[in-house]
Amino acid sequence: MVKKVLIIYAHQSSGSFNAAAKNAAVEVLTAQGCTVEVSDLYAMNFKATATAEDIKGDVKNAENFCYLEESRIAWEEGRLSDDITKEQTKITEADLLIFQFPMYWFGLPAVMKGWIDRVLTHGFAFSQEKRYSQGVFKDKKAMLSFTTGSLESMFSPTGINGDMNVTLWPLQNGILNYCGFQVLAPQIFWAPALTADEDRKSMLEAWRTRLQGLLEEKPLSFFSLDCFDEKAFQLKPDVHEKHASKEFGLTVGIHLNKPLPPHSQMKAGC
Amino acid sequence: MVKKVLIIYAHQSSGSFNAAAKNAAVEVLTAQGCTVEVSDLYAMNFKATATAEDIKGDVKNAENFCYLEESRIAWEEGRLSDDITKEQTKITEADLLIFQFPMYWFGLPAVMKGWIDRVLTHGFAFSQEKRYSQGVFKDKKAMLSFTTGSLESMFSPTGINGDMNVTLWPLQNGILNYCGFQVLAPQIFWAPALTADEDRKSMLEAWRTRLQGLLEEKPLSFFSLDCFDEKAFQLKPDVHEKHASKEFGLTVGIHLNKPLPPHSQMKAGC
Repeated sequence: MVKKVLIIYAHQSSGSFNAAAKNAAVEVLTAQGCTVEVSDLYAMNFKATATAEDIKGDVKNAENFCYLEESRIAWEEGRLSDDITKEQTKITEADLLIFQFPMYWFGLPAVMKGWIDRVLTHGFAFSQEKRYSQGVFKDKKAMLSFTTGSLESMFSPTGINGDMNVTLWPLQNGILNYCGFQVLAPQIFWAPALTADEDRKSMLEAWRTRLQGLLEEKPLSFFSLDCFDEKAFQLKPDVHEKHASKEFGLTVGIHLNKPLPPHSQMKAGC
Repeated sequence: MVKKVLIIYAHQSSGSFNAAAKNAAVEVLTAQGCTVEVSDLYAMNFKATATAEDIKGDVKNAENFCYLEESRIAWEEGRLSDDITKEQTKITEADLLIFQFPMYWFGLPAVMKGWIDRVLTHGFAFSQEKRYSQGVFKDKKAMLSFTTGSLESMFSPTGINGDMNVTLWPLQNGILNYCGFQVLAPQIFWAPALTADEDRKSMLEAWRTRLQGLLEEKPLSFFSLDCFDEKAFQLKPDVHEKHASKEFGLTVGIHLNKPLPPHSQMKAGC
């Protein structure tokens, strides 16, 4: 069956390294028979800010407007703005999402955060019952592919920026895993702006090679929703006990006051 | 001397809990003799997306536009757009910045991330030499004050969302500490939407009480730039050795493959 890939892409310039990484993904995946769609957020002039204008018709509570609640209702009633609905349709049809961006301030560029805030509507992308391992998108894959400004050494457990696994946790757990996506290891292009032309070419070649087997990759490990109780969402005593003698925590966030499992947000099988 | 406070505020509704928290800060700090300014990002219709339009006149390299570099040059030459320059002037004049927002997807709402991306220009807010403990804003304080959708128990080292200290690291280290700000402990309002009216009132009362002594609070602990070498920005061997026998890592990010220091991103003195 033909696999569908959606690339959510955020760079201002078609001459950038991020553009080259995006183009490589389009080429290699298309050559493999995938259908690839690109949401080029800057080119689309994608609205980043979550406002009442995202809802067609009247809002339910104008005096105490709550975006989470109002957008959930609008989604149920088919009253979300067209730009949001279009992106939601792309997600529904996709088997794999690739977020391609330059890391800004240890996170997503605002335009991409706006895509997350506005498109992953309550009801459409998650609900109280449907999240994490029971998430809406549990049959889909997603991954981050990004450039950094800093060297790899700076993003280590002994480097000044701290462990990249920590910085990735809110993005990969809090957004992708939260919605149920199987999260593939991130593709990190370390400081291409500080790198010689030849090494930048090698980085892109390595990405092209990886892309050929991307859809068969094992995802990162997270823990199943049923490991947690249904009220306080704390780890169940039997699961906690099972891991009591282990050297490392379960994940970066659910670390049980033990050392973090090394590379758990960067490599599958860790 | 009169202290100046800048509140960067991101909520769509004046009836919200976030509005009440912002209003409490304005009232209590003004009553103490502070001058308080509010940047109300939604009301200002603040542009979130970093584009070439942020630069007056021609960009240097239109074919390979790099926002970081182009905005640095525009800042040096006084050619940043007026909305950015206005916010930069507010920061320059302020002694304390308070970011008031609802946490969206384990992070800042896009409009606030856009304020970070666009206003904290290279050159104005940091440079290769001026960052972390040598940062441009080392004589200023900054803090996050935010609401969550999830319960406190969910954001613990044994909760499904993982330790809140991990989620705060990229924001407090990667943005605030990176620019040199002394980072005050975050004010976290846990799940006000799931809370009874009376408890919401108590949350605001506790915030008002805290605000009275806020400017005298000790900041969170980070590690000085001179603990790291100047090339790879790795912890220097003597600092590493000094901490070798200690139970915990230095910080959440610079964890040395040891358990994270508890509460280090949430309480001063940890």
